[in-house]
Amino acid sequence: MLRVAIAGATGYTGAELIRLLVQHPNVKIVSVTSEQSSGEPLVARLPSLNRFSDLILEKFDTDRVAENADFIFSALSHTKAMKPVAHWMNAGKKVIDLSADYRLQSAKVYEKWYSAPHQEPALLKKAVYGLPEIYRKKIAKASLIANPGCYPTGTLLPLYPFLKLGVVDTTREIIIDAKSGVSGAGRSPNTTTHFPEVNEGLVAYNVGTHRHIPEIEQEISAFEAKIIFTPYLLPVNRGILTTIYLPLKRKMTQDQLEEILDEYNSEFFIRLVDHPPNLRDVRGSNFCDLAVFATAGGRTAILISAIDNLVKGASGQAIHNMNIMMGWDETMGLTAPPFFP
Amino acid sequence: MLRVAIAGATGYTGAELIRLLVQHPNVKIVSVTSEQSSGEPLVARLPSLNRFSDLILEKFDTDRVAENADFIFSALSHTKAMKPVAHWMNAGKKVIDLSADYRLQSAKVYEKWYSAPHQEPALLKKAVYGLPEIYRKKIAKASLIANPGCYPTGTLLPLYPFLKLGVVDTTREIIIDAKSGVSGAGRSPNTTTHFPEVNEGLVAYNVGTHRHIPEIEQEISAFEAKIIFTPYLLPVNRGILTTIYLPLKRKMTQDQLEEILDEYNSEFFIRLVDHPPNLRDVRGSNFCDLAVFATAGGRTAILISAIDNLVKGASGQAIHNMNIMMGWDETMGLTAPPFFP
Amino acid sequence: MLRVAIAGATGYTGAELIRLLVQHPNVKIVSVTSEQSSGEPLVARLPSLNRFSDLILEKFDTDRVAENADFIFSALSHTKAMKPVAHWMNAGKKVIDLSADYRLQSAKVYEKWYSAPHQEPALLKKAVYGLPEIYRKKIAKASLIANPGCYPTGTLLPLYPFLKLGVVDTTREIIIDAKSGVSGAGRSPNTTTHFPEVNEGLVAYNVGTHRHIPEIEQEISAFEAKIIFTPYLLPVNRGILTTIYLPLKRKMTQDQLEEILDEYNSEFFIRLVDHPPNLRDVRGSNFCDLAVFATAGGRTAILISAIDNLVKGASGQAIHNMNIMMGWDETMGLTAPPFFP
Amino acid sequence: MLRVAIAGATGYTGAELIRLLVQHPNVKIVSVTSEQSSGEPLVARLPSLNRFSDLILEKFDTDRVAENADFIFSALSHTKAMKPVAHWMNAGKKVIDLSADYRLQSAKVYEKWYSAPHQEPALLKKAVYGLPEIYRKKIAKASLIANPGCYPTGTLLPLYPFLKLGVVDTTREIIIDAKSGVSGAGRSPNTTTHFPEVNEGLVAYNVGTHRHIPEIEQEISAFEAKIIFTPYLLPVNRGILTTIYLPLKRKMTQDQLEEILDEYNSEFFIRLVDHPPNLRDVRGSNFCDLAVFATAGGRTAILISAIDNLVKGASGQAIHNMNIMMGWDETMGLTAPPFFP
Repeated sequence: MLRVAIAGATGYTGAELIRLLVQHPNVKIVSVTSEQSSGEPLVARLPSLNRFSDLILEKFDTDRVAENADFIFSALSHTKAMKPVAHWMNAGKKVIDLSADYRLQSAKVYEKWYSAPHQEPALLKKAVYGLPEIYRKKIAKASLIANPGCYPTGTLLPLYPFLKLGVVDTTREIIIDAKSGVSGAGRSPNTTTHFPEVNEGLVAYNVGTHRHIPEIEQEISAFEAKIIFTPYLLPVNRGILTTIYLPLKRKMTQDQLEEILDEYNSEFFIRLVDHPPNLRDVRGSNFCDLAVFATAGGRTAILISAIDNLVKGASGQAIHNMNIMMGWDETMGLTAPPFFP
Repeated sequence: MLRVAIAGATGYTGAELIRLLVQHPNVKIVSVTSEQSSGEPLVARLPSLNRFSDLILEKFDTDRVAENADFIFSALSHTKAMKPVAHWMNAGKKVIDLSADYRLQSAKVYEKWYSAPHQEPALLKKAVYGLPEIYRKKIAKASLIANPGCYPTGTLLPLYPFLKLGVVDTTREIIIDAKSGVSGAGRSPNTTTHFPEVNEGLVAYNVGTHRHIPEIEQEISAFEAKIIFTPYLLPVNRGILTTIYLPLKRKMTQDQLEEILDEYNSEFFIRLVDHPPNLRDVRGSNFCDLAVFATAGGRTAILISAIDNLVKGASGQAIHNMNIMMGWDETMGLTAPPFFP
Repeated sequence: MLRVAIAGATGYTGAELIRLLVQHPNVKIVSVTSEQSSGEPLVARLPSLNRFSDLILEKFDTDRVAENADFIFSALSHTKAMKPVAHWMNAGKKVIDLSADYRLQSAKVYEKWYSAPHQEPALLKKAVYGLPEIYRKKIAKASLIANPGCYPTGTLLPLYPFLKLGVVDTTREIIIDAKSGVSGAGRSPNTTTHFPEVNEGLVAYNVGTHRHIPEIEQEISAFEAKIIFTPYLLPVNRGILTTIYLPLKRKMTQDQLEEILDEYNSEFFIRLVDHPPNLRDVRGSNFCDLAVFATAGGRTAILISAIDNLVKGASGQAIHNMNIMMGWDETMGLTAPPFFP
Repeated sequence: MLRVAIAGATGYTGAELIRLLVQHPNVKIVSVTSEQSSGEPLVARLPSLNRFSDLILEKFDTDRVAENADFIFSALSHTKAMKPVAHWMNAGKKVIDLSADYRLQSAKVYEKWYSAPHQEPALLKKAVYGLPEIYRKKIAKASLIANPGCYPTGTLLPLYPFLKLGVVDTTREIIIDAKSGVSGAGRSPNTTTHFPEVNEGLVAYNVGTHRHIPEIEQEISAFEAKIIFTPYLLPVNRGILTTIYLPLKRKMTQDQLEEILDEYNSEFFIRLVDHPPNLRDVRGSNFCDLAVFATAGGRTAILISAIDNLVKGASGQAIHNMNIMMGWDETMGLTAPPFFP
């Protein structure tokens, strides 16, 4: 059994890691940390996990985590993961960082968007961006995975096949309209996520300024494509529905478009569907439901992806990455069906 | 007091007409009809209106409605309003039709999208499209108003100022991404709108085939602009949030874009805001909250509008039209603040 | 026009006071205060009120509020209202306090439940408990109203007629099972009211220890009845549905029970219904929908009331009280229908 | 591998059976039937199950189901299961009926509450009521299980230990106040479960007349206790929160009450908690979270249970029963943690 630690265990991505890992046949969780609740049993903060863990939340201690575990999931917040991750790397551990700290290859870009200098710029080159369907081979050899953001996951998976083939018209912007459930905002309460403020509402936020923009731009930079990105706060617990309006160099038919997505035919976690994907059909699972629609004019395609932001957009993808790093079956621990209704 | 009838009173637009009209100082509701519940008190089907109406639901009878009322709101379904509306026009009544039956000026286009021939094509020319901010003068003289669809309302109000000024690049499509609450689907139950199927989900529908497409196209046809339109079913009761990605002929700054919207400065029901509009802030009101955002590239603008689909997108706009037709203060009966939280 | 101030204007009860008062024909709001947002326009914190108020939020200052206004609504938090209310009373103002500070006639009981000594015990005697259907006459003469809590309102209105008549079996407990929407917890964010924690859940809280227990007990103390009170956090924005299992001295039939409630026949804001009341039918209104059901055994009656916690349970009831204090029509400003769907 | 059929596979309990059974190590689903969608792939009606089943929905045929399978779950509606179940019993199959058809031991009581004569009264005696924690031994030997209703499950589990011990005061009624998510109403759309009618509402229904009353009464009949039962429609997808006000013969302390529940100490699926159970903590799981609270007076106890109506209240309990009937580990296929948030 692989001895695993989770730093930052009581946030939503931490909690989701635990929900999934307790069902993983090759893993044993040996250490869970929490800034605010150390000393309490894990289930005091996550009563749903009663029966599944007797662990006590530890005060976060970089060394102690390293002593206990061979594989570390860091669900610490942005800027707080940098140093500990470097420490664990030096100690020879395998690490998956679910924060943004190792996603941007340029320390300069990082500093601009996260308002803090990167303290471990040398390590940035060793981090592999953990999008398995795209970077599977690199992930297999990596010791440090920068686990992708939720919006980038729902955006990049649909985009890649089209960009790679060179069918995208890069003189026009790719428009990304992405609607996210509230768990994407984390578990710390604030006015924006207070129930009566969110419920029965819908609102765009950070128009043109969201921190996932540089992450998407970096990953498609080889293709010289430009994006416009609009995220929304959606009154549901989980899920990101991403609609991409993709400019095409030439008119394409429905069949031609579908043929391009067929590249994903053998990917277990990508389900190509012929109807608009619905958040409810991926809830709780690591699936990305994906569809493409030709338009009347033919020069723009509509791509729609649905993921669970906490699974495929965070913790499930992290486990997928772990499976690849460890040489295990990729779907291990991730084969429960979605949760409907 | 103007004697008013509502045909189709127990659907959501009918119910909303009543909620608003019982507060209107110049109006008396004299007749309410229902296909399925005739003979029952109105409040049996709409218990929220207890204390506000003693009316009994009548079996729908074109003549009887005309006898009782001088002004008729038709909230009948598409294809069922055509004949009665013509009858009432012949009887010299003023009519506002909330269905689509008189919205499309071409009987041919109507037949294509509604799968039924138009039975009163001659009357189509007399119908005025009831978007007050655009067609105020025509509305003032009209006897028959085709009350706009909810999606077209949320789309056309933001678009017009830009189209009129000629700043839109018509070689690229205008992209409209519009998310609607479930009341927009009407009050008849079906699997799509069954609570556990909608709740905690989000899904696009009728991609490229929604019936509001020809309505929007007709209204912008003078400008030779093309649209892509994607509607969504959103798990909230009320509201449409419409995001428009507007291609511009030349780069425009935030200031320049805002200046164009300033055209609406004196419109009571359009609130220009400098933050992304939120459905929760217009709930229950006839307001359209409207914002524009420049993008980094400058050649695309983002327009976002928020309306309550049942008010500004249906019954409130109908009352606004009535006020104009009757020469009354335009805001009469429509001055209650939105309903938050 | 009565010059009115609202202390604590940006919480939910403050916001609801403003939503209702801007429609009140005899009132002008002259002053709104906020601890955290002073200096900002009111609409910056409450964008739904855009068009309805140009007021700037003032730093709270007891004297200044008194200078500006003749009638003061205090929506300050518990323990923070005591002193200012006393000050305003001394300045000869009429005051309605929406906190609990003047609801409990005993300073001792107050201290026990609110963990703070009462600083103005002498004033407690002058405060009238503002339940208009019960204390109408006293309210008419009062200068200081202790506006009832939301749970006590939904509980006491159904209970009174039965207690007064002496049909309640006081050897058994009255069981009160009351489900409240999240706005009842106020506008300050915390983990309990964070969207993903509330949504799709239901949970009882403060079982046997809720602060509204002594308030209910005080009001029924004359009848020597005992209560068990269980409140719940319900994933809706507004509303309290209260179910009361009422022990009866003798078997009573449905007709006999209904006859007792008929006492409320002429109360505008109490709607006696013959079906289980639904939160959705009172939303946004000052109504209390009320029904009674006999049980098979006959010795227990089931009472169900539905109110909007922010209106009948707080701000609407406060305005009702103001209308009575000022000798105006009781329903003034409170005649808009509920908001459905 | 046990060959299993599911009759009525596209309703919510059918869908939930499939979601759970595809993860069960000893089972293979060989046949799924649907009245309305026969001939379609299962995943056309349940897209969330894409990747988990290639089955085609069959037209329901009693014989064919019996030919294919050795173990049959019937998720047919009430009155429609009677005949087929009898047929399968004659064919020597093991059957779990999730309808009410074999729950009531008296054909007379059945006819009264389901308005249809029971067509297989002789078989009623052979059916075992499938509440594993209570009837484990009988279930182990049974061929036909009447799977309990959702409300009875959430009610009987808390009640039994107290009734068995004889501490309940049977001169007073046991009051059961039970709030159910909308999936409990099934997947067939109707006005009551139409999204905008349910959302943001709460309403009691079938006060004193719900069909689960005789089922509860039968199971506690040995103890001569009387109940009052009030169910509610709650705007969440899943879950039943049941609050029971239990009359006690003598005053009991918190410790004494908890000691009685300790009987369940070794039951995996009953989690005794010291805080009010929350629906969100059992979502998607077969757990019943259970707490007891003493009251000030001491002569009434408050019991609160939380279950997922589709799992512990239906399909999960059915699988638990199957495990017992087959002599397998009771928790097989039911060990995934609840789904939070």
